[in-house]
This record gives sequence, structure tokens and C-alpha cells, in this order.
Amino acid sequence: MIDKASYLIEPWAIRESGVDLYDLGRSESLFALSNGHIGLRGNLDEGDPHGLPGSYLNSVHELRPLPYAEAGYGYPESGQTVINVTDGKIIRLLVDDEPFDIRYGELLSHQRMIDFREGVLTRDVEWVSPAGQTIRVHSERLVSFSQRSIAAFYYEVEAIGDPARVVIQSELVANEQLPTWRGDPRAAAALESPLISERHRADGTKVETVHITRHSEIRVAAAMDHHFEGPDSLGISSESEPDAGRVTATVVLLPGQKLRMVKWLAYGWSEQRSLPALRDQAVAALVAARQTGWGGLVREQKEYLDAFWARADVEVDGDPEVQQAVRFALFHVLQSAARAERRAIPAKGLTGPGYDGHAFWDSETYVLPVLTYTAPAAAGDALRWRHATLPLARERAELLDLAGAAFPWRTIHGEECSGYWPAGTAAFHVNADIADAVARYVNVTEDERFEREVGLEILVETARLWRSLGHHDLDGRFRIDGVTGPDEYSAIADNNVYTNLMAQRNLIAAADAARRHPDRAAELGVDAEVTASWRDAAEDMFIPYDPHLGVHPQSEGFTEHQVWDFEHTTAEQYPLLLHFPYFDLYRKQVVKQADLVLAMQRCGDAFTMDEKIRNFAYYEALTVRDSSLSACCQAVMAAECGHLSLAHDYLREAALMDLRDIEHNTGDGLHMASLAGSWIALVEGFGGLRDGGEVIAFSPRLPEGLTRLAFGLCVRGRHLRVEVSDATATYTVSEGPAMTLLHHGQTVRVQPGEPVSLDVPPAPVLERPRQPAGREPLRFLRPPGEGGPSNPGAGSSAGGAASVGGGHGGHSGVGGHPGVGGHSGVGGHTGGRGGSGSTAGAVPSATGSTVDG
Amino acid sequence: MIDKASYLIEPWAIRESGVDLYDLGRSESLFALSNGHIGLRGNLDEGDPHGLPGSYLNSVHELRPLPYAEAGYGYPESGQTVINVTDGKIIRLLVDDEPFDIRYGELLSHQRMIDFREGVLTRDVEWVSPAGQTIRVHSERLVSFSQRSIAAFYYEVEAIGDPARVVIQSELVANEQLPTWRGDPRAAAALESPLISERHRADGTKVETVHITRHSEIRVAAAMDHHFEGPDSLGISSESEPDAGRVTATVVLLPGQKLRMVKWLAYGWSEQRSLPALRDQAVAALVAARQTGWGGLVREQKEYLDAFWARADVEVDGDPEVQQAVRFALFHVLQSAARAERRAIPAKGLTGPGYDGHAFWDSETYVLPVLTYTAPAAAGDALRWRHATLPLARERAELLDLAGAAFPWRTIHGEECSGYWPAGTAAFHVNADIADAVARYVNVTEDERFEREVGLEILVETARLWRSLGHHDLDGRFRIDGVTGPDEYSAIADNNVYTNLMAQRNLIAAADAARRHPDRAAELGVDAEVTASWRDAAEDMFIPYDPHLGVHPQSEGFTEHQVWDFEHTTAEQYPLLLHFPYFDLYRKQVVKQADLVLAMQRCGDAFTMDEKIRNFAYYEALTVRDSSLSACCQAVMAAECGHLSLAHDYLREAALMDLRDIEHNTGDGLHMASLAGSWIALVEGFGGLRDGGEVIAFSPRLPEGLTRLAFGLCVRGRHLRVEVSDATATYTVSEGPAMTLLHHGQTVRVQPGEPVSLDVPPAPVLERPRQPAGREPLRFLRPPGEGGPSNPGAGSSAGGAASVGGGHGGHSGVGGHPGVGGHSGVGGHTGGRGGSGSTAGAVPSATGSTVDG
Repeated sequence: MIDKASYLIEPWAIRESGVDLYDLGRSESLFALSNGHIGLRGNLDEGDPHGLPGSYLNSVHELRPLPYAEAGYGYPESGQTVINVTDGKIIRLLVDDEPFDIRYGELLSHQRMIDFREGVLTRDVEWVSPAGQTIRVHSERLVSFSQRSIAAFYYEVEAIGDPARVVIQSELVANEQLPTWRGDPRAAAALESPLISERHRADGTKVETVHITRHSEIRVAAAMDHHFEGPDSLGISSESEPDAGRVTATVVLLPGQKLRMVKWLAYGWSEQRSLPALRDQAVAALVAARQTGWGGLVREQKEYLDAFWARADVEVDGDPEVQQAVRFALFHVLQSAARAERRAIPAKGLTGPGYDGHAFWDSETYVLPVLTYTAPAAAGDALRWRHATLPLARERAELLDLAGAAFPWRTIHGEECSGYWPAGTAAFHVNADIADAVARYVNVTEDERFEREVGLEILVETARLWRSLGHHDLDGRFRIDGVTGPDEYSAIADNNVYTNLMAQRNLIAAADAARRHPDRAAELGVDAEVTASWRDAAEDMFIPYDPHLGVHPQSEGFTEHQVWDFEHTTAEQYPLLLHFPYFDLYRKQVVKQADLVLAMQRCGDAFTMDEKIRNFAYYEALTVRDSSLSACCQAVMAAECGHLSLAHDYLREAALMDLRDIEHNTGDGLHMASLAGSWIALVEGFGGLRDGGEVIAFSPRLPEGLTRLAFGLCVRGRHLRVEVSDATATYTVSEGPAMTLLHHGQTVRVQPGEPVSLDVPPAPVLERPRQPAGREPLRFLRPPGEGGPSNPGAGSSAGGAASVGGGHGGHSGVGGHPGVGGHSGVGGHTGGRGGSGSTAGAVPSATGSTVDG
Repeated sequence: MIDKASYLIEPWAIRESGVDLYDLGRSESLFALSNGHIGLRGNLDEGDPHGLPGSYLNSVHELRPLPYAEAGYGYPESGQTVINVTDGKIIRLLVDDEPFDIRYGELLSHQRMIDFREGVLTRDVEWVSPAGQTIRVHSERLVSFSQRSIAAFYYEVEAIGDPARVVIQSELVANEQLPTWRGDPRAAAALESPLISERHRADGTKVETVHITRHSEIRVAAAMDHHFEGPDSLGISSESEPDAGRVTATVVLLPGQKLRMVKWLAYGWSEQRSLPALRDQAVAALVAARQTGWGGLVREQKEYLDAFWARADVEVDGDPEVQQAVRFALFHVLQSAARAERRAIPAKGLTGPGYDGHAFWDSETYVLPVLTYTAPAAAGDALRWRHATLPLARERAELLDLAGAAFPWRTIHGEECSGYWPAGTAAFHVNADIADAVARYVNVTEDERFEREVGLEILVETARLWRSLGHHDLDGRFRIDGVTGPDEYSAIADNNVYTNLMAQRNLIAAADAARRHPDRAAELGVDAEVTASWRDAAEDMFIPYDPHLGVHPQSEGFTEHQVWDFEHTTAEQYPLLLHFPYFDLYRKQVVKQADLVLAMQRCGDAFTMDEKIRNFAYYEALTVRDSSLSACCQAVMAAECGHLSLAHDYLREAALMDLRDIEHNTGDGLHMASLAGSWIALVEGFGGLRDGGEVIAFSPRLPEGLTRLAFGLCVRGRHLRVEVSDATATYTVSEGPAMTLLHHGQTVRVQPGEPVSLDVPPAPVLERPRQPAGREPLRFLRPPGEGGPSNPGAGSSAGGAASVGGGHGGHSGVGGHPGVGGHSGVGGHTGGRGGSGSTAGAVPSATGSTVDG
């Protein structure tokens, strides 16, 4: 049981059988629970052993100095880092004075599971203590979607064979000891014991603590209450000290007898509110939750998820791994955002401390497209958070001598926290990404009030930014020079196509929105002269093109640069950023992640189909995918260009990023963008969803191997269900009035309750584009049914389940594809991303299937 | 006397009358003595008060960590910082138990002077102690050119009016308390008390100490000995402790009686040698110096300088300030290099800790051209130092995945110490600059053995670097992408014209040298295929040109960028790097320092005269001169283009950089490159010296106001003297055989001892190019005779002397031109360069002239 964990392939759940002591961090991320407000890593109830303990409250962070060997004007001096707050997950168990610890004694069985329809983490353990006492523990845990400040726990212990004296200690622990930080030692110093105790109190089954963070001065209240059921000998006590609170229950269990506990945990935090106010807030939430009861919370959880899945479920026949993965992805994307409510959606959600807990452009570019169609309220809230940071973004723009607002490249609280400007400040596209998310949200939800109160101001301020960032050259072209596009293996280049196209769209969206809300626009100082100058700039936007090669250079001059020497780059030298200097990467044709390809995905109208096919093939040969943000984009454009099998490969890579721990850093938290990317690859890729204008468009087409794809969208007041099979696509308006849509360019009117089925045209026959040697889509991820070592004979998605081997380095991968880095920065605070890069042997590959019980 | 210092204008000396307590640092740099091996700042003998105490030994440095907010592959982790070593300058004086300290009592007179023909700092003081005792102190100080490990001091105190009990304490002090460091606090922490005592001993009039640096483990031995003369009551004692040694003489002086002391100070240091070996080395040097005696050392000093001036003197009639300045410059350039002997020539010489004591490309590009023609042995030694660092440069190239050798952007010991790669590692031109210095040295000295043993290997390894750094594009052009040229307001650009032209020259020079030394080339692995590929690359070198504007873009695409908004940039916003982010600077047309203009100066053959005139005018309008490395280049190209008055203005700015403390950071050390630049502006500018090929060429032409310019050059075994007046240029071979030269394109044969006089053609009449508003050459530096507030009625250069006001903020400048930054990096270790930039009121301007006594 120990050192061996299998993750089973099931359509609606993630289930771990056994436990891998050396890879606990990964399971803690996979089994993390969150509602976007509170996040609890899937640490074992008893706290030890752990990969990385983690309890996170959205936006609760500490400050740390950002050092520079050579300083420069405008460099941020203070960074923000998510902190592990007061841990209320811990439930220690003593059996006849021996602590329950799976590292000792004998573990007979260990299973953990989340059913995505339930939203509850369950755990079943049978353990023999070193002294020979057998017990059975069943626990459940939830972070409530319905009561955002609440997490709750159900814990049941049963003695087997012999009577046992059992003690349960339910804890609240601040300033937990964490594993040594792997990055900047100064950051670690600043972050040790970040919480200062302000109050602690124990009373009966209740404990309250209040702390405040040392530098950021955020006050955090945590409170817990309990209900116990057990034999009459049950005794209960409680105690507290500055950094800990404890409720203890002790009882002698006869064989078959059980001790049951329900634990409610409430948090409250604020930069402003007083200690009594915050304490009262947490205690009030606790009282309400206790009244709801464990059963009530579980019921509410299910109701919330039922509603979500009815809107959002994606069905995939023919690839059970992808079926599981896309539901896993949707579940976690929902968890990251559901109740974030005007706080950021970090790159890792609230599943781990990776990237310091920062939010990047990924939120708007990858996560919000999914939420906009499946949980639009959460998407709106995320954009309201950006809106709330506008004053800081205006300050940043002013510091940079620019007009409007410049949103940060990475942040928790709104201030720029990037310590390397060529891949931070210079990546101005984040502003157009945010504006695009606003325009998309308004277009899809038709939420006019949002546009008027929130969206317009973001569009206006970002349009102002672009107008001041670009300039007309002597030929009248509007140029945006010296910026960094999405591809982090290039930087500080002129006229990045993605940036220029997105800026163009930003300028037009702002002008259009100002026209729709002239009074509000006037309040923002926007008149017809201003919007005309935005439209002029958009009209004159320079999009470089290389007529010799017949492709678009990613940025001006890119195609004249030397092509990276892929032939002499060994597998161990990926990710390149850990083995080559930025200097070398920036000046050559090598692409970390979709950039021009993303431009074609997001701004498809700017390219002809021929251009798309040529560009796609050109950039395939240069793209090494050293980022988790790439595979889904490549899937979408591969599908559009007709490379369906390749698209399927990329879909699988995006979808299995965390389930297979492809980058070996799932332990730091899940890759929200890549998870969202599995939806994007399916819906925008094989569904062919494009929705920039008035009419939503689909160009569905399935690859060999996928027999059916069905997905639901909330769009313009309707609920639309799309079902695609090999030959036919069926559109159903299940809620709302009739709507018009495009199917492969053909206008279709769909009446409510009257599904329309249309033929799917065959894909063109094209040569499969080539990737750099060794950087093909991961071969060990090859879909089932194509032979090879992956999941031979995996069951269908309808109830059967196959298992995929986990473990650390247990099975050598076929491709030996090493770890792949994500955002910018080696080391620094993001620590071990990709590690030393020499991880070829540590890639988990598929094992034979088993049937679960 | 206090708070008021005048620097007098004399042809052969720098003389300070009075002393400015608030600007002591400046005088300490101006009066610094050095032989390139040892450097002593012009601190007052008694140690206090001081701006910044400084005793430097070439290459003695400490290590400090280089921190990064976000780390990256290949970033240097350790920096090197020059340290203030054991101070042997201190001679404290007690008068009737009161310490002689100019801040107390009454200072009747205070004068310091260096005669550039003597190389001795003299000081004369008359002081009344707070108790009313008047004394007269006369001191002299030298750092020996002839005995490189030796400094020596003569000290004489005389009682006036009343008898006085006088105590002299001659000290040796390690780990002196320094003013708070103004940069990175971590650097300061690492550098506090860098010396660990290993030995100390006092014996009679002798004291020895040995220390070792904490991290860099460089052992430093210092030893002093003394000779006293005075009345019979003279008593002498000595003592030592770990960080201090002291010899004390005490005596009662009757009025008119004097106590005289000679102090000899010797240093030895090594990374390798043992303690006894180093101690013996220092003591041996001491014994030899004592035997030479004070008079002997003074004599040797004069002989050394007589020989130098006979070769190197530059005479300027019509501008006495420039006459003084160019001799001041030559004296300090000589001091920085004379006995450096295979160690680096730092950007500040050994006059202060600015730029951490690092050497940059300035050494090869600005200082070595001067030394090559005036002190060729020192130039050769400086290149031998580079040669000695080749193993480190090869390692660096390998780390960067490049062939050959990549010399560091900034270093003391040879390792790259730049903490900001876009303005460090990416500035690869440093390699071509070094290669060019090698080629120049060989061409001028015809030192074949040097070429074979030293030069060839540098040329070969740098050529290999360029060949691997560039690539042929599909059109067959050889491109060098993503590098940074000299202008630090641009970075990471493609095909920087300066870099490409210098790389071209590097490749050809290497191929030519390999042909001259085929056997040695073969040992280095260079065969005909290799040299052919170098010549191919040079032949195909891409030099971008903008046909629409008819100018060369500094780098590809540069002329399409937005022009900096000079109109709305206020005087307080210069230097721009302190008020705008690099992001903003890099993407716009704004030039910190000559870049394309430097390309035209160094590689003139690549441009037609028309192109030069157009390019010069274009870049004049964009160049803000926020660097001390620019004015001299602009002077040279202004002169070549025929803008003689403008050239004169730039000459003055280069020449007076430190004498007038234009950048307000002379206190950190003198700007060696700008000092060398005053020679370059005169000799390459008004002398029109160009010497790339077989025949040396001159195109002399004087601006209005300069009536005569004469200079000497050591070239190809001759000593050539060039004398230019308004209408005529005269060439004299004063040593060596006949030689051929070009005069304004005309071939001339000059026989030894037979001066040839030729007409100077008139300059074309051209419109004076415009500079960005407020960035014209400094108006308060306008030459004498042109009216305005500067030096009305200043005397001629022939013996008369005018004074220029010093003081802090005493006289508001006309232009209000604020401080100007030098190398890259705000803050960091270089601290207060330019300070807050709001220094308009603090610029010293000229005052009325006085006649010196």
C-alpha cells in the first residue's frame, strides 16, 4: 500500500488506491478542495506524513523584498507570496497511545476519492498499529460551495478485533513547519512564521484564533467547532495557545464500535476589519454551518454541483482518460473560481503555493473562456477583481510614463510583482487579454450593466494604454515596439503579431463599448475624438508578414533569426530555460509556447485558411512546449487546420498535465490554465467554437478514436447543447429562446427543444506537421486503442475503470520527455519547477489496466 | 579657507586653494596618486575629515553575492568589489595635545598641488589650533613609477610664534570605517571589515601587517618605515595590533624649529603566495626604497615623467582650460596604467571605488588608444591581462553555448560580474573592442612577438565567438541578432551597426594574423577552412541601412521606432535612466551615448562622407549624452564632418568631466575613459588621426579659438610630432626612420629631422546640427573668449593661471544641466551616480579669474 499509488480511470471521479510516500505532494494537489475562497490541499487528516501542508485563503499573502544585482527605475521592490494559513484540517488519532501514522505499523488498505458530482473527498483506511491493533478510519472532507467561509470534516474510527483506547485531537495550527523552500533563501526567511497571534480561546468543543501577517498586515480569524458521537465513555476537552488550538475526544472502543466526529471550520480575513469584527464573522459562519449540519452541507454541495454539471458537462466517448480528465479539469477550474468573488484566480488556484500564488494572464486567456460559458457569474467576479485593481494599474502606467492602466504581469493583490521586466512588464499583452475577457464576457452574457459599471472602464483604460504604447511610423503604420508576446523564449521585440492583433481588438472593443454607453464614456473622459484615434490606430495596426517564407513572423524580424539547433539539443537540455541563457533563446527561432498560433486561435479573422495552415506548420517545427500553456492552443489550431490526430495528441497532453504530472511539479499545485485547456482543446478544437462577433460559430470535427463529443454552453441567455459524432453535429437549445449559429460557415436557426442535426464535412488530407526532434506530443500519452504501452484494453467510459500507474520513477516513459517549465523564471520563488531537468527516467507511464471494486 | 576651494587654471598643474569640506571626495579623486599598481586617494594626511578614504591595490577585491528577484541560467552569482586596503597614508599630528583637524581652530591657508611633470602631491597649511598655537605643515606624497610597490611621504611641521609640543603618529590602519554605502545593503554587509589579520609586528621605526580577504582569500602585506629629523628632544616609539600599526615621534619645537619625517610604504599581495613570502616581498621593497631615499624617489619620479611627456605631451593654444585638462588627463591615464602590469585598468583607475572597481570595454576603446601611442608598454600589459583571462572567457563562452571566448562585460579578476544581462552579457561588442585594441597595438608598435604570443590567441578566440554568434540568413547575409551595442538606451537588438562592423574587423584581423603566424595558428586549431569561414562571414556582414531616411539605423529597425518625446522631458528628468524604465528607453529613438557615431569613428571606411554627415546630424538630434563615454566621440565625428565649433564644445565637455565634476560623481573616482577622451577629441578630432591600415592618416583642422595644437605619437618605431595651426600642419619625425603618412588624403613622406609643413584645407560651411532640447553641449563650459559667464579674461596658457570656482552649489549653472550617468545600473553598487537627478542648482560654474601666486 505504501510507495504505490494507482489512479483509476473513471468517468466521474478521481480515485487513488494505495499511497505513494515519495509523491505525496502530487496527491495533495490532485485531491485539493477549494471553493475559490478557501483552499485545502489534500493532506492526510493526521497531518503527517505530508508533501507540503497547505491551507490557503484567497488573497492572504505576505510581502517579501525583491532583490536585484543591478537595480533599475520602475523595478518592483516588494513581492507577494501566498502563505499557508492556520491549518484546520488536522485530525490526529491515537490508538492505544500510538499515533496513527501510515509510515509505521501496517497499512492494509488506503483509498481516496473525489466524485466530481459530490465535491467531497473521502478516505478509507485499514491500519494495523505497530502494537497490532487494527482500526478502520473513514473520513470525508468538503470545502463548501454554498457557504464560502466553511470547510467541514466527517471522521469515523472503528476498532477491529480488539478493544482500543482511541484519542482524537482535532487541531488548529498556525505557522506550521514547512519543508525547506527551494528558491531564494531571502524569501524563505521572510516567510518563516508569517502569522503573529492576536487572540486564542478554547471553550468546550470550540476554538478560535486570530492572527495577523507580519508585513502585509492581513488579519486572519479561524474557528472550529465539533460534534462527537461514540460510546458512553467519551470524554471531551479543549485548549488553546497562541499558535495552536485543540479539541480532544477520548474513548475506549469495543470491536465494531465507532467514534464519529463532525468538524466545522470557518475562516474570515481582512486587510481592514478589526479583530472583534473578524472573530465574530468567523464564529457566525461557524454557527450557521453547524446548524446546516454535515448532511446539510453535503446536500448543498451536491445541489451546487448538479447545477454546474447540467450546464457544463463535457462528454467524450472513445477516450476514457480524456473523459475523466476533462471532468477533473472542469471540477478544479470551478473550485478555483466558484466563490473567489472579486479576488484573483491564481495560476494554481488554491491548490498549492506554485508561482507564489500569483495570478497571470492565464486567468483571462485560459480559465475565463471556460467559466464564461459554464459558470458565468464566476467569470464576471474575476473581472470585477481586475476592475478593483484599476487604481493600482493606473499608478503603474503612470510610473511607466504611459496613459491608461497597465495591469501587472503577476500579482496577488494588484501590484506588479515581476522581478524580471523583459518577461514581466514588457509582456503588455496581459492588458489586451483582460480586455478580451471583458469583451467576451459581455458578448456571451449580454450583461449590459456589467459592461457599463465594470467592463467599459477596463476597456477604456487599456485602450488608452495601447494608444500611448504604440505610434504611427512615417508610413502611417501603427507600431508597438519593444514588447514581449506570449512566447517567453522571445522578448522585447517589435510588432508581436499576437500583441498587435489583440491590441487592435482592444482598441475597437473600447470604441464600440464607448459608443454603447456615451454618457458613462463621457464621465471617463472619452469623446468622439478619442474613440476615433483608437479606431485609427486599430485600422493602421502593423501586422508583419514574411513574403519570402509565406508566413507571419511571430514578431518583426523573427523569421530572419537563426533557427535553434534542435538536432544537437539533447532530451536532458529541456526545458531549455534551465540549460541556456535567455540571451541565446531570445535571439533564435525557438518557441516555448503558442504565440503566433495563439494569435490565429484568438484572432482567426486576421488570417486566411492557407496562412493558418502554413503558419501552423512553420511554428510546429519551432515549438518545444516548455510551457503548460501551449498544448491546448496547438490542439485548437491543429484541429482547425485539419490535423485531427495531432490535435488529439495535444488535447491529451493538456488534459493529462496534472493527472500524469507531466511537468513533475503538480505537487506545487495544479495547472489551472492547462486544465482549462482540456476544455478549450475539446470545445474550441474539436467543437470548433469561435465566438467573436454576433453569431456563435462551430466547425465540429472529431479525430479518429473519438466517437462522440457533447458539451453545453451558457450563451446569450440560452443553454445550448452541442453533440458531435463522426458524421453529424446536433445543436439543441435546452433553455431560452431560439438562436442563430454557424455550422462550418452555414447559418442555422435552432428553435428551443428542436435539435438540429447537420453533416460534418470530412477533414482535408494533410501531411502531419513535424515538431522539433524529441518534442513531439508525448508518446507515452498516446490514446488507448493505438497500441503501445498505454492502457491496453482500457474499458469504455460507461462505468468501467482502468488504472494508471503513479509512483515515482516506477515506469520509464517511452519518450523520456523531461519536465517542462511554466512561467518565466528559473528558481527564484517558483523553486523546483522542472528541477534539474534530468528527469527523463521519472516520467510515469501507463501500466496495465485493472478493474476497480 | 574652509568650504571654499578654487581650482586654478595652469598649464602644468592642478592646484587647489582653500578646501571645501562638503566636496572633499572630489578633491580626493582629483589629487589621487597611482602607478596602476597602487592607488592612494588624495585624502588629507591626518585622515579626518574625509570624503571617502581609499587605498587600492590593483585587483585586490572581495566577493559579494549577486541577488536576483527571478534567477536565470547563466546569471553570475558572485560579484567582485574593489576594497579599501590597509591605509598607510595616515599621518596624525597633535599640537599641544590637540589633534590637527582643519574643522577646528582656524585655517589660515591651505593649498594642494600636483605638478604633472613631478608626480608629487604637495600640501601647504597654516593652522591655528583652538588653543591658539600656530603651526605650518608642508607635506609631499608620491606613488612611485619607478618602484611599483612603493609610496612615500615627506612631512614637515613647524611651530610659529610659540613653542609647541608636537606628536606625529604615522599609521597603518586596516578595515577603516567607511561612510555608509549608498547602494545594495547586502553589498555593504559583505564588505564591512573585509580584511582578516594574519600577522602584525612593530620594531623601531618599522611596522608590518599581513591580512587576508575573507571570501576572495587574497593576502595583503603592508609595511612602513620612517626617518625623522628634529630637535634633540625627539622621541620615537612604535606599536602594532591586528588592524593597526603606529610609529610615534614626539618633540617640543621652538618657534622656527621643524620636525621632519620621511615615510616609506610598501605593499605586496597575492592570491597564492604564502604569508612569509609576501611579508618578505613588502619588506624587501621597503629596504630598497629607504636606500633610494626620499630625494631619490622624487628624482626617479621626475625622470619617468620627463620621458613620458617628451613622447606624449599635447599642447593646446587658445584654450587654457583644455590645455590644463588634457595634461591632467594624460597624467591620470598614465597613473592608471603605468605599472598595472598584466592587471586590469578599471573604469576609475585606482582613484575611487566607483563601478565596484571594475574594468569595462572603456579600457580597450578609450584608454588603450591613448596609451598605445603614448605609453605602448602599458597598453601591451593591459592586453596581456586580457590574455591571461582567456581561460575564464572560454568558460563563459561555453556556458553561453558559444565558441571561442566571451570576455566579461565588467570584472576585476576576469569573471563576468554583470547582474543585468541585457546591458551586460548581451553587449558582446566588448570582444571586438578587445580584438581591435590588439590589432591597433600590433599595427602601431609592430610588435610581432606580442602578436604571436598574445594577440593571435585573442583574435582567434574572439573571431570564433563572432562566427558562432552570427549566422547566414536565407539571403546569405551574415546577421548578429539580439545583442546590445554601446548605446545603453537600446538593448537586445538585431544587427547593431557598431557591433557588426567591429565583428567584421575582428574576423578579418584574426584571419590576417593567422596567415602571418601559420604555425601558431595551427596550434590553435586554425586552418585555411576556418579562416575562410571568418572571411566569408566578414564579407557577408549585414549592415542595415534606411533608404527612406538616408541614414544607417543604429540597429535594424531603430529608425522605425518612436522618437523620444524630448519636448516634454524636463531638465530634472535627466539622466533618463533614473526617471524612465528601460522598457521605455529601449523601444524608442533616444541615444544615451555614441553608438552609430562611434561606428563611424572607428570604422570610417564603411561610410561615405555624405553618409557620415547625414548620420551625424540624425543622431545628434537623438543623443542625450547620459554617459561620460559620448562627448569625445561626438567631438571626433563633429570635427570630421566639419562642425568644428561643435567639436570644440564636445572636447571641452569630455576634458572637463572631472575637473568640473559635471556628473557630480567625481568623488567616486575619475572617469578614465572621458579623460582619455580629451586626448581622443584633440588628436582624432582636430588632428584627424586615423590609423586602421598600413599608413597613418591625419586630417587636421582647428576650430576658431584654438590657435595651435601639437601632439606626439609613438608609431611604428618612430616618434612623430604633429603641430597644427590655423592654416598649416607640420609633421616631424623626431626619432626613427622616415615614414609615409596621409595628410587630408594626400600621401606625404617625412624624413627624420626634416619637418614637412602642409596647408590645412578650410572646413565646409555646414549648418550646426541640433541636439535634443536642453542637451546641447554644456553651455557653462563655453570656451574662453566667447563671452558669457565663463572665465572672462582668462589668461593665456603660457604661465598665467585662472581659477575656476569649486564649492558645492555655489554658482548656478547657465544650462542647469543635471548629472549624467555613466555605465549601466541605477543604484546597485555604484550608488549615487547622478543622485536624484535634481541637481540643477548644484552645478559649479565659472567665476571670475584670479592670478595665482
